Amino acid sequence: MASIQSIRANCRKVMCIGRNYADHVKELNNQRPKQPFFFLKPPSSILLPGAGPVLRPKGVTMHYEVELGLIMGKTVKDLHPDDTQGALDAIKGYILAIDMTARNVQDEAKKKGLPWSIAKGFDTFLPISNLISKSLIPDPQNAHLWLSVNDQMKQADNTDLMLFRIPRQLSDISRVMTLEEGDIVLTGTPKGVGPVGTGDVMRAGLKVDGRDIEEARIEVP
Amino acid sequence: MASIQSIRANCRKVMCIGRNYADHVKELNNQRPKQPFFFLKPPSSILLPGAGPVLRPKGVTMHYEVELGLIMGKTVKDLHPDDTQGALDAIKGYILAIDMTARNVQDEAKKKGLPWSIAKGFDTFLPISNLISKSLIPDPQNAHLWLSVNDQMKQADNTDLMLFRIPRQLSDISRVMTLEEGDIVLTGTPKGVGPVGTGDVMRAGLKVDGRDIEEARIEVP
Ligand SMILES: [Mg+2]
Ligand SMILES: [Mg+2]
Ligand SMILES: [Mg+2]
Repeated sequence: MASIQSIRANCRKVMCIGRNYADHVKELNNQRPKQPFFFLKPPSSILLPGAGPVLRPKGVTMHYEVELGLIMGKTVKDLHPDDTQGALDAIKGYILAIDMTARNVQDEAKKKGLPWSIAKGFDTFLPISNLISKSLIPDPQNAHLWLSVNDQMKQADNTDLMLFRIPRQLSDISRVMTLEEGDIVLTGTPKGVGPVGTGDVMRAGLKVDGRDIEEARIEVP
Repeated sequence: MASIQSIRANCRKVMCIGRNYADHVKELNNQRPKQPFFFLKPPSSILLPGAGPVLRPKGVTMHYEVELGLIMGKTVKDLHPDDTQGALDAIKGYILAIDMTARNVQDEAKKKGLPWSIAKGFDTFLPISNLISKSLIPDPQNAHLWLSVNDQMKQADNTDLMLFRIPRQLSDISRVMTLEEGDIVLTGTPKGVGPVGTGDVMRAGLKVDGRDIEEARIEVP
């Protein structure tokens, strides 16, 4: 299986699903979407395990969002939303990821109708875990995500709470843009997002059937 | 010099500058920006020369936007806005490009404060020319862009009209996200954007000192 370094090097697109957990939609006072919507993060924002801290740009309120990430293994175009097997077959592995967000920049962009790319795209704004082989997550809709800041648990929810499940996500994305091998899809964040500053330590992980997945651990200063 | 096929294959980020020509800002009833803003298009939207038509998704009002594109030749981070030589040195070549936009999708996204990625990211939404070697455009702020639809001239303006010049663009982008070799930067579109439908033929080109640049020609059905 490919190393996590090669995942970064070969990634040409990071697609992120927004507002995919009901309680997270509420906590940001957003509208519950009628269909999945998504946005791009640049591959240059990927922060590999052990590659140092997330850098907070001046004047930025930086929020964490823990998410299950999919590494695509093949080209996907116009996937049918009910094609669960097709969706699973197109995934070659998983990562855990933190979709760091410049919340104040995003809030201003929303107000002005401007793109989200800056708010989501700073260097180091996408810490990822090591690669998780597919066999460790037999059902990606039944995995427990958690994230703590300075050992205080902040996010802890199961992926079965997603509003739109993975086949529907890949269907909607791939009807707009072809997913290519090496592309990364982030599947949305559960409730509990919040600010993090210089000196805070984020830890995140994934449990399947109550068991910690070693490869999924993230620790970023 | 690299082939245009390898440009597509190696591109990991397409950054586009918005609202960079005053008369284009006016024609869309937008606010003139105090600083450059930018958004991402996915590399999967690139349409190579001769690779067929731009595909109009159902229900989409599709607009053309002709733009001068920069192909980055090296890593750029925190470039100084006055470093004109540094900016030029970081460019390894040029392309002409049409930043196709699902205008009705974008208008709705703006109204709702949603990301622009869908409106800008459909497959085939980035027709590009062949590679233009650097020596053919001695001064990228003095090149004449044009685009016609069914042989009716729609856009025709000089890059000296840019509100934010290229060094400032690369400075602002690279203070958010590192520009890497192979990344593409689109520098904004002049006035005259408009709709195009199935069956319409777009042609676009570039003149330098009154001379047509052969490599810059685009023709898409
Ligand atoms: Mg997110
Ligand atoms: Mg965007
Ligand atoms: Mg444009």
